[in-house]
Amino acid sequence: MKKLLLVFALFGTLACNNSAEENSVNSETPEVASEEKDTIPNFGIVIHGGAGTILKENMSDSLEQQYKAKLEEAIKTGHEILANGGTALEAVQRTINVMENSPLFNAGKGAVFTNEGTNELDASIMDGATLNAGAVAGVTTIKNPINLAYEVMVNSEHVLLAGKGAEKFAEEQGIEIVDPQYFYTEERYKSLQRIREQEKTQLDHDDQKTAFLDPYIKDSKFGTVGCAALDKNGNLAAGTSTGGMTNKRYNRIGDAPIIGAGTYANNKTVAVSSTGWGEFFIRGMVAYDISALMEYKGLSLEEAAREVIQKKIPALGGDGGIIAIDHEGNVAMEFNTAGMYRAKMNRDGELEIGIYGE
Amino acid sequence: MKKLLLVFALFGTLACNNSAEENSVNSETPEVASEEKDTIPNFGIVIHGGAGTILKENMSDSLEQQYKAKLEEAIKTGHEILANGGTALEAVQRTINVMENSPLFNAGKGAVFTNEGTNELDASIMDGATLNAGAVAGVTTIKNPINLAYEVMVNSEHVLLAGKGAEKFAEEQGIEIVDPQYFYTEERYKSLQRIREQEKTQLDHDDQKTAFLDPYIKDSKFGTVGCAALDKNGNLAAGTSTGGMTNKRYNRIGDAPIIGAGTYANNKTVAVSSTGWGEFFIRGMVAYDISALMEYKGLSLEEAAREVIQKKIPALGGDGGIIAIDHEGNVAMEFNTAGMYRAKMNRDGELEIGIYGE
Repeated sequence: MKKLLLVFALFGTLACNNSAEENSVNSETPEVASEEKDTIPNFGIVIHGGAGTILKENMSDSLEQQYKAKLEEAIKTGHEILANGGTALEAVQRTINVMENSPLFNAGKGAVFTNEGTNELDASIMDGATLNAGAVAGVTTIKNPINLAYEVMVNSEHVLLAGKGAEKFAEEQGIEIVDPQYFYTEERYKSLQRIREQEKTQLDHDDQKTAFLDPYIKDSKFGTVGCAALDKNGNLAAGTSTGGMTNKRYNRIGDAPIIGAGTYANNKTVAVSSTGWGEFFIRGMVAYDISALMEYKGLSLEEAAREVIQKKIPALGGDGGIIAIDHEGNVAMEFNTAGMYRAKMNRDGELEIGIYGE
Repeated sequence: MKKLLLVFALFGTLACNNSAEENSVNSETPEVASEEKDTIPNFGIVIHGGAGTILKENMSDSLEQQYKAKLEEAIKTGHEILANGGTALEAVQRTINVMENSPLFNAGKGAVFTNEGTNELDASIMDGATLNAGAVAGVTTIKNPINLAYEVMVNSEHVLLAGKGAEKFAEEQGIEIVDPQYFYTEERYKSLQRIREQEKTQLDHDDQKTAFLDPYIKDSKFGTVGCAALDKNGNLAAGTSTGGMTNKRYNRIGDAPIIGAGTYANNKTVAVSSTGWGEFFIRGMVAYDISALMEYKGLSLEEAAREVIQKKIPALGGDGGIIAIDHEGNVAMEFNTAGMYRAKMNRDGELEIGIYGE
């Protein structure tokens, strides 16, 4: 963490210098200011809080406002870091921390329950400048799994650590540990009970897979938060954090901790975070596939995201969405579900928040 | 397993019919036989037993013969299945089983030891026809992890299961369970002791990563077996199995159980199995990247494999190799290390076995 704080402090200083220049230009020669603005490096940030059958008729006004307020708080946290010259990696982590610390999303505090009534969290992060990456799977005592993924990336020779081993590494790195009880929320626990009942009924009909065809169960099962950012230095980063799948068994690992499936970042192309039915996102290597379509086939981010989310994943039978920002600052928020909690914010501070389909 | 046997039995029957036709053509009209031969669907198989600093001067003639004999036994097992009309998936599994059951390779019986003196095995398999996939990570009691990966693919809604949960699923599926003592081999245990000593010395010099720069340690750390096959029906499959990394800590997961990194298969393009420094193969999404270069950029398998293994992975600082077979039966055995245990066998039964660089 020391290294990170140092980098952040350094960029903070540079950012102050930049701001001073902007201000002086603005106050003296307004016409030039507009031209000068174009020379300020582009930056931007985009987030998701999960995709699924999110419909206005099932959402109270009060809950909708809570989601919007938390999405705004999260994205503004990262945007401020970027505006001040901070790194994309720092912006991604701190933005995801806000969502991890809220019970609204299936990540961190709001993680769903496994079949055994425990919470198993996954996360991953990738640095587009170095193609370095870190990830953790099945941790039960880490308050902010995205921060542990970052430590794996910068302070180990590994990419992916799991379970008790990942937690041992967390202790050594001084990452915040919580009692597993921290992840108990009444609403998520009730979800587990409801899903157990429904699955029991469906299992009686001798088809384990029908549980996945019930939209209520599927949406309660899945959920993720993610962020992708471009900083003023042209560096991209992406991260994803999840509480996994309600009622999951067998220590299932989804796409969130899988580099290339749940998370990918490459300064040459794009930074992507996925949310959806993880098994299909692993088989489709969704995050990397968008990058490959851009790099190898010359598609724009918009075209690549549409190809993967609207054609390739549905062809496999899966659903979900992605958020992404490319090396020029273009943003995609593509999903094939009814809704996706999402927000984007550009260099000029223009903010757009969405929940339902358009 | 029932489904699999049924499919195998069915193809076995078809294969017998094919053989009968071939025989009758051969015996009656030799000239036509040559033309007829071209109408026999192409098929082929390729395997690896790990890549690394494998040098002739460090290898006894006796050990070299043992490796060659086991590679031949393994590939002929799969080739016979394919020749008889069996599926690529079946050929991949049974071929890998031969290597998993040998102490020569770091997979199954010959798995290396973790820092705690245990053995944690990983495997994955992918079906190029359906893009379905199955994988397991960190299992300690599964004799043939590739068979469990197959069960995950066909008998669960999941792709990746880990640790105790994966073992519980294995019990339910009737997969062969062994006492962890089964994986004890004196040679691997001595390797762990040697590496512990060397790493201790290097850790005293305060740089954890230097351990990876010692070629002896690195080669002892990594090792994998893998197989890719094209069957007479034009279906591709690939699989990978490993004992992981000697002296590994923190429940590290490498590329072997990661679809797109260690294993990938797609009937449109290619089937690939990777072996090497897993962290770099995850970051480079090696197996899928070869497929993407073929599909999106129009590269041949040879060009794509060379691009990834000779340029992209070394640029990241990693090393290793891949074996692959494409939808036309073209084969690649590409590595940037001194050697790679490998073999390939085509429709005509031509066998090529290699250990060192050319």
